[in-house]
Amino acid sequence: MNRETIVEELKALQDAICAALEQEDGSAKFEEELWDREGGGGGRTRIIRHGAVIEKGGVNFSAVHGQLPEVLVKELKLESADFFATGVSIVIHPNNPHVPIIHMNIRYFEAGQGEWWFGGGIDLTPHYIIAEQAQWFHEQLKNVCDQYDESYYPKFKKWADDYFFIKHRNETRGIGGVFFDRLNDKSGRSKYEIHDYWLNLGNTFVPIYVHLMSINKSKSFTQTEKNWQLIRRGRYVEFNLVYDRGTKFGLETNGRIESILMSLPELASWQYNYIPESHSFEEQTAQLLRKNFDWIGWSK
Amino acid sequence: MNRETIVEELKALQDAICAALEQEDGSAKFEEELWDREGGGGGRTRIIRHGAVIEKGGVNFSAVHGQLPEVLVKELKLESADFFATGVSIVIHPNNPHVPIIHMNIRYFEAGQGEWWFGGGIDLTPHYIIAEQAQWFHEQLKNVCDQYDESYYPKFKKWADDYFFIKHRNETRGIGGVFFDRLNDKSGRSKYEIHDYWLNLGNTFVPIYVHLMSINKSKSFTQTEKNWQLIRRGRYVEFNLVYDRGTKFGLETNGRIESILMSLPELASWQYNYIPESHSFEEQTAQLLRKNFDWIGWSK
Repeated sequence: MNRETIVEELKALQDAICAALEQEDGSAKFEEELWDREGGGGGRTRIIRHGAVIEKGGVNFSAVHGQLPEVLVKELKLESADFFATGVSIVIHPNNPHVPIIHMNIRYFEAGQGEWWFGGGIDLTPHYIIAEQAQWFHEQLKNVCDQYDESYYPKFKKWADDYFFIKHRNETRGIGGVFFDRLNDKSGRSKYEIHDYWLNLGNTFVPIYVHLMSINKSKSFTQTEKNWQLIRRGRYVEFNLVYDRGTKFGLETNGRIESILMSLPELASWQYNYIPESHSFEEQTAQLLRKNFDWIGWSK
Repeated sequence: MNRETIVEELKALQDAICAALEQEDGSAKFEEELWDREGGGGGRTRIIRHGAVIEKGGVNFSAVHGQLPEVLVKELKLESADFFATGVSIVIHPNNPHVPIIHMNIRYFEAGQGEWWFGGGIDLTPHYIIAEQAQWFHEQLKNVCDQYDESYYPKFKKWADDYFFIKHRNETRGIGGVFFDRLNDKSGRSKYEIHDYWLNLGNTFVPIYVHLMSINKSKSFTQTEKNWQLIRRGRYVEFNLVYDRGTKFGLETNGRIESILMSLPELASWQYNYIPESHSFEEQTAQLLRKNFDWIGWSK
């Protein structure tokens, strides 16, 4: 479980995810760009565009090291500015508003002498929330969590609710998922166990999203539904630029800007004071964008 | 020059600007929403949409008062949390990529016992930079400034360059303009003089933008030019959500979210690693997005 092993696992995960997404999309292929970071390390940015299912998506791997800026050392309460960070980051924006946006990030971090932790999460942003799919999505995450620790799902589900929250809109970004950070052996679990859980969560991405693509991608949609998708994407942009810590970390450490902002959609819309029609599917979705909702226990 | 007078002047300015924009647009009318702020005060939000020239624009007046959050009191280095703030804020996003985006904000602020200042600015974001128009725009601003103080234009032009800068892209938002803040009698000018300059700057908005609308609105444009406009708007969104202090102030003081974010365009685009064609008009514009460029002295 040294750095090198983890880096190889993440690269293999990136390969597997790209292959599965290309296959389910059926049309577009990932383009790859290799980049080096001036302060140390680099990455493999992979972007897929204008596919049959995916309008714009990125599956990025990076492994960077060097010295953190003082402001981050303080914020992260680290003893040293030396750091190593590696991870895989994914955001997929589909063409069809009935296919949800998905985001995953799994990361491993080392600082100074001997400090280490794992972090990560998967969360879903359906433009239209469908009860059975929301339930199914959360069940998949709970299943992975429960294999390791029954406290993980409730704890990390709440963490996602709190994290993926657009304060100025008083709404969640989507239906959440799981999110955790700084998980290490102080939690009572060994590095071996945590690593295994973390990698397994990463491996859950493909079966989850391929299923959601597959069951939704052929649905027809109207202009109103497309418009609503663009508005939801606008909120996604607001979250990522105003609150997302990964984006801020990237901007503050002079990361590769095109890789950091690959999470932004091809097209987004802001319409002044847009209010969905009463009793519409759009209104129903908007009303469900709240914290602490029990998606698994939810039955319509 | 008490609060009440300034409030009336700003309301009259809002009226005049809305009337002039409606006339030059020739099709759409402003819709008004009156709102109250929970902590004190309120505003008149006016939005124009889907016009012949303007795709989306806002001309907002507000006058709010109450207690600033502690974090802002510190940031602004104030002696007291009591505040009063009034201003007019404008952002106009046109349909035609050959018409520039414009922004103006003029504001008056009071804090605690007797502290006061004026602030404001006008800046232009052409999707395509045309030498004569950039020169003309800056000349208009310089003319107003020079009537009061010859140090204003160079000082406030530099301030705009530094302020409207997208650090993570290493580019300016547009061609800048003038920007100033906390201008009061410590500057050596009386409140009367500063107020007069400030109001005159506000009055320059109509002749400037009506001219720029009028000479550009009938130009034909291609799909490539429309696409470039959407990308430039994406950068506008990045600036406003990541750096703009007015936006942050609004979000942190629980301002009316639809009024604060009226600055965001109807439609914006992010395309991975978009690089304009060599020697294209797009490339030429991108290369001009830099600080400390002498727009007035520039001759092609």
